[in-house]
Amino acid sequence: MTGPRYPSLIASLPETVPFVGPEVQERARGAEFDARLGANENVFGPSPRAIAALQAEAAEVWKYADPTNFDLRNALSAHIGCTPEHLIVGEGIDGLLGYLTRLLVEQGDAVVTSDGAYPTFNYHVTGFGGVLHKLPYRDDREDLIALLDKAAEVDAKLVYFANPDNPMGTWITGAQIEAALDRIPDGCVMILDEAYIEFAPDGTAPTIAFDDPRVIRFRTFSKGYGMAGARVGYGIANPSLIRAFDKIRNHFGMNRSAQAGALAALQDADWLAQTVQNVTEAKTEIGRIAEENGLTALPSATNFVAVDCGRDGDFARAVLANLIAQGVFVRMPFVAPQDRCIRISAGRPQDMAAFAAALPIALEAAQNPG
Amino acid sequence: MTGPRYPSLIASLPETVPFVGPEVQERARGAEFDARLGANENVFGPSPRAIAALQAEAAEVWKYADPTNFDLRNALSAHIGCTPEHLIVGEGIDGLLGYLTRLLVEQGDAVVTSDGAYPTFNYHVTGFGGVLHKLPYRDDREDLIALLDKAAEVDAKLVYFANPDNPMGTWITGAQIEAALDRIPDGCVMILDEAYIEFAPDGTAPTIAFDDPRVIRFRTFSKGYGMAGARVGYGIANPSLIRAFDKIRNHFGMNRSAQAGALAALQDADWLAQTVQNVTEAKTEIGRIAEENGLTALPSATNFVAVDCGRDGDFARAVLANLIAQGVFVRMPFVAPQDRCIRISAGRPQDMAAFAAALPIALEAAQNPG
Repeated sequence: MTGPRYPSLIASLPETVPFVGPEVQERARGAEFDARLGANENVFGPSPRAIAALQAEAAEVWKYADPTNFDLRNALSAHIGCTPEHLIVGEGIDGLLGYLTRLLVEQGDAVVTSDGAYPTFNYHVTGFGGVLHKLPYRDDREDLIALLDKAAEVDAKLVYFANPDNPMGTWITGAQIEAALDRIPDGCVMILDEAYIEFAPDGTAPTIAFDDPRVIRFRTFSKGYGMAGARVGYGIANPSLIRAFDKIRNHFGMNRSAQAGALAALQDADWLAQTVQNVTEAKTEIGRIAEENGLTALPSATNFVAVDCGRDGDFARAVLANLIAQGVFVRMPFVAPQDRCIRISAGRPQDMAAFAAALPIALEAAQNPG
Repeated sequence: MTGPRYPSLIASLPETVPFVGPEVQERARGAEFDARLGANENVFGPSPRAIAALQAEAAEVWKYADPTNFDLRNALSAHIGCTPEHLIVGEGIDGLLGYLTRLLVEQGDAVVTSDGAYPTFNYHVTGFGGVLHKLPYRDDREDLIALLDKAAEVDAKLVYFANPDNPMGTWITGAQIEAALDRIPDGCVMILDEAYIEFAPDGTAPTIAFDDPRVIRFRTFSKGYGMAGARVGYGIANPSLIRAFDKIRNHFGMNRSAQAGALAALQDADWLAQTVQNVTEAKTEIGRIAEENGLTALPSATNFVAVDCGRDGDFARAVLANLIAQGVFVRMPFVAPQDRCIRISAGRPQDMAAFAAALPIALEAAQNPG
């Protein structure tokens, strides 16, 4: 009665999760958070039209979703200006990153990313046996030129670049990306993770030919459109790479209501504009709160703000722990020196008020432990 | 500008889909189906309490789902009598089959299944480079003893057995499965796919120790609970195997509303009982329609019925094509001699009426082509 025989790669992997969810922390502390500002969610939520579409589709949930995501891909192609054949829709960017990694990375293949960038990408790469090469941030930004040069040096299959960045909220211009494209080495695909692009200033998204075989862009309904719990992300790439997903993806993996909700969300540009305005105001408020407490908020092109706590990672971790104990859920970068910061999502006035009330207490506690 | 370099396994895979969705067929024919009885969905749909839960959760969709599926696993463990540590919840059985295959199957590893059983499992095995050994059905049943003996012969990592079976609807008793367990060879895991178990007679589900390392059972909210479009399946296995999923799964892959809907569905036993009653009546009606047309309906422990069209696969395919042209969506087994049948889901009276009206025309057309 011996049971499973795991391949050596699987046996070597930890039983892990890239992020501990806030519900897990709430159960541990025995109370819900007063403000949920840590998971890079969009507190302002989806368009009422999206909510209505989710609700209307609930009675149709006995049907599997259309595995081709036909309606959503058509609407997205019109929105973006590409063809539906340039688009893959999947179970969030997380799901698509997993598929892409499986498509390209074999055991021992090199992959390049920034040290402290998206842990879920690293989780997928490690899970398929890829070898991660991590480069430090430069001035709290992902260092695109260095990443691409490293990709050439190690003969990488994949290089990951998020613009705007998570967890720092920093960004470079689309023109800077365009100027760097020719550094992508032969046989390498650059992931351009634009999860937060709807919050970024005009000119942040580069112009890249949709047929360019060197780049896949990922976007999502989780952030600007406020539908993280629906799991709808998409990729934009050369049709040949898009078709390759059909070799391995979970064709019937999409939630039917989520398809309908995303379609409705895409059609409510006014709501998105209002959300971006709400986020901008909240980010200003986070900056004000930081300054009031003698701290510095980093400029952000996302819906969150990295606040520099002015000392080292241990200090920021102490501030974070106290905020969480007070019921304000935030997270922070994992890697020095970015871990001098805590990361707070833009929230409603009541969320910002909870943060404003908790921060001075947390700073005081961190400065005078025990 | 060369773009992706695919591993040889990936390059060898076809761009495929295990099933063509009914929406694709509807677009091709330019009209919706009058009766949707082909995709093994449950036309009777979910409990109104599940629909209400889906709708209530829609406004909370800005939050990611709890990656531990805590509430649902707790409720399922109480329902089943195991612990939450025996349970993995995932994006439908399809998603869980993909994870399990990844956990166990390396290139060249042997896997055993029945020829004509679930194609999506085969898709996953092929996608990870496994070598499929397919055994024929015996008397329209999956041949458990032969499958397990084959697994020993080829040193299989996985053996797939669905009870009740899809696409034939046949089954064996739980006692027969219990008696066969000791044939599972060392180092092999038996997948017991119980997707349709809620429709099966008492005694169909075997008693297997929850800690048994040789078996993983899969169940779903897609069939009995009528929530295929929500994508909620679960596995029951030894906690060690359950924990292994945490090494590779998409932790934040679940739809938040789907978690809430499944929880509410589980709590409405009356609705499930009514559904099973509705399905039983509809299956009786399918049998009556078959007989009226000189055909034989196979006994079924699922929510669909395989109807023997009495001739070969080409004849059944002609019947099927004509039914589809008439707006009655059904499917059929892929492999001879089971492909002498067409497979019809239990439906509402209006669905059964559409089938009853279309079948004689389809039979006439198939008997007198051109």
